[in-house]
Amino acid sequence: MSVRISIDAMGGDHGPEVVLAGVAVAQARHPDARFILFGDETRIQAVLAGQPALAAVCRIVHTDVVVGMDDKPSQALRAGRYKSSMWRAIDAVKVGEADAAVSAGNTGALMAMAKVNLRTMPGIGRPAIAAIWPTLRGESIVLDMGASIGATAQSLIEMAIMGAAMARTLFDIPRPTVGLLNVGVEEIKGVEEVKEAGRLLREGPQPDLIYHGFVEGNDIGAGTVDVVVVEGFSGNIALKTAEGTAKQIASYLRAAMGRTWRARLGYLLARDAFRMLKEKMDPSRSNGGVFLGLNGVVIKSHGGANAEGFASAVDLGYDMVRHQLLTQIEKSLLSRSPAAGTPASTEAAVAEGRS
Amino acid sequence: MSVRISIDAMGGDHGPEVVLAGVAVAQARHPDARFILFGDETRIQAVLAGQPALAAVCRIVHTDVVVGMDDKPSQALRAGRYKSSMWRAIDAVKVGEADAAVSAGNTGALMAMAKVNLRTMPGIGRPAIAAIWPTLRGESIVLDMGASIGATAQSLIEMAIMGAAMARTLFDIPRPTVGLLNVGVEEIKGVEEVKEAGRLLREGPQPDLIYHGFVEGNDIGAGTVDVVVVEGFSGNIALKTAEGTAKQIASYLRAAMGRTWRARLGYLLARDAFRMLKEKMDPSRSNGGVFLGLNGVVIKSHGGANAEGFASAVDLGYDMVRHQLLTQIEKSLLSRSPAAGTPASTEAAVAEGRS
Repeated sequence: MSVRISIDAMGGDHGPEVVLAGVAVAQARHPDARFILFGDETRIQAVLAGQPALAAVCRIVHTDVVVGMDDKPSQALRAGRYKSSMWRAIDAVKVGEADAAVSAGNTGALMAMAKVNLRTMPGIGRPAIAAIWPTLRGESIVLDMGASIGATAQSLIEMAIMGAAMARTLFDIPRPTVGLLNVGVEEIKGVEEVKEAGRLLREGPQPDLIYHGFVEGNDIGAGTVDVVVVEGFSGNIALKTAEGTAKQIASYLRAAMGRTWRARLGYLLARDAFRMLKEKMDPSRSNGGVFLGLNGVVIKSHGGANAEGFASAVDLGYDMVRHQLLTQIEKSLLSRSPAAGTPASTEAAVAEGRS
Repeated sequence: MSVRISIDAMGGDHGPEVVLAGVAVAQARHPDARFILFGDETRIQAVLAGQPALAAVCRIVHTDVVVGMDDKPSQALRAGRYKSSMWRAIDAVKVGEADAAVSAGNTGALMAMAKVNLRTMPGIGRPAIAAIWPTLRGESIVLDMGASIGATAQSLIEMAIMGAAMARTLFDIPRPTVGLLNVGVEEIKGVEEVKEAGRLLREGPQPDLIYHGFVEGNDIGAGTVDVVVVEGFSGNIALKTAEGTAKQIASYLRAAMGRTWRARLGYLLARDAFRMLKEKMDPSRSNGGVFLGLNGVVIKSHGGANAEGFASAVDLGYDMVRHQLLTQIEKSLLSRSPAAGTPASTEAAVAEGRS
């Protein structure tokens, strides 16, 4: 069975040329993948003309409307529903023509369209965006990166289940470890939801994950757990703060290495080591946010991603389909005991615990 | 006028020996500083015996009770009120014997004792913890690091005012730029408080700060603004995530530089550059959280700080006193127009804006 991926060719900061260059890179890695490209036919044809091997596995569907990178979700839905390249790419998943959709378009619009068109899975209250985070031990999954702000205990538990399913899919670990992101200060008000989620995760049977407990911000990069769960405001801030810190240190390093002739010479000698470091820190290597909790696989690429970055996002979509992310999530939801399985019954359990 | 600093000699992971070594470092930098040391007299005496210059500017007050690093705030208050080294150090500020208190003890207990004993300033609803964050442009102030979880628009505005006062005190900028930390996704629910605070900051007269607008996680390290305001859960996570990322990259760098003989040789040649980088990234250089909004200056040193780190925290306390942090905050609160000055009247303004 070939994996069919629909591409929003018009999404992102750089236009279809970079998106298609990314598709070409991913296609070389996954010769069995097939693509449907939504966007300006003339521009897409111009790129494909020079690449017959790529053209052979692509089908173009012309669209006129492009969702702007700064369009608000409501605006994007008004102007782009049914007819934009973004909507059509998602719709291909909805109608079964594609197994996953990939877009570098704006996150808010993509999530709004995906929610409206694909709807959330039964048993899931709301979707989340998961990122793959490079760590000292390899890679971890961190969610939510900003699909929603704030989270009830139930949402956090759903995220734990979905994140663990993604970790099984991606890392091939039968029972991934899951931590709830929290602050170290004890006894302060306002994290009741996190504490409650922790209690429920600890008490309930967890056939598909190992609940580790609370983790703190520094545990993410340390790779303490396979899956880090946090509500979307803090998750988004954590991700961008880490990106900012990496840039900052890279800039310090450049400055330090250019300062004296000895440092410059040392830099030249250690060039391979620096190249390795740069690759380790390259954000395009782990580009791609996975929308979890929808009836379909949607991958968000960074808007500013280069071809290599977009290819990583396509790879991610490919892997999610190949290893059956949606089935994994469904199985986890079903395998949970009735007392913790569905939102309604968990609410009952919570009420019971409090009474 | 000499600056008088009270020290919780028993706070921190390493005990009075490291704390006092830190005091000695800070004392050498500020010969006019005077210290009151609260803690085990025998252990303190043992250290001071070898340092007559330091002993000459220190007064020891013996205390028996030590607040444990893992004590909950309520526990610490129960066991340590009136008699622990931590309480007594804060109390010295309260009764006017000291101008600032410094402790490496546990954050929750220190904040609880400081709140109970010093109380919040008139016009301030609740205290916040501010950190100094090294950036590409120098240093910024980020608050709240976890004094409270969640924040109303009014709390965020108070933090903007207090953070700006601290920036004036520390960086000598008449009108520091202030940004509200937010996520880039538009139109998602849950950040009403941040939006409301942004609207009020933009509309009201701001004689003592320049309101920049929203900033994102990556703007912190970039140094986009002098002061970054965020509620304490996300702020704490951002800080620890940045620390984790810095550690992670340092570890990548070490691994890369040890891998081949060329890299090792390059490392040797560029040793000074690496030393510079290490200093730039040294967390002890910007150690110390400032408790803002209390009727007194309290500085929290990292529990694991070494002597140099503790000295930075003492320096910070010294600077806050020398440049009159409390007076700066009071002046800012007074100078604001009646419509935006006090919590009550701001609420009225909010209600007005909504009606």
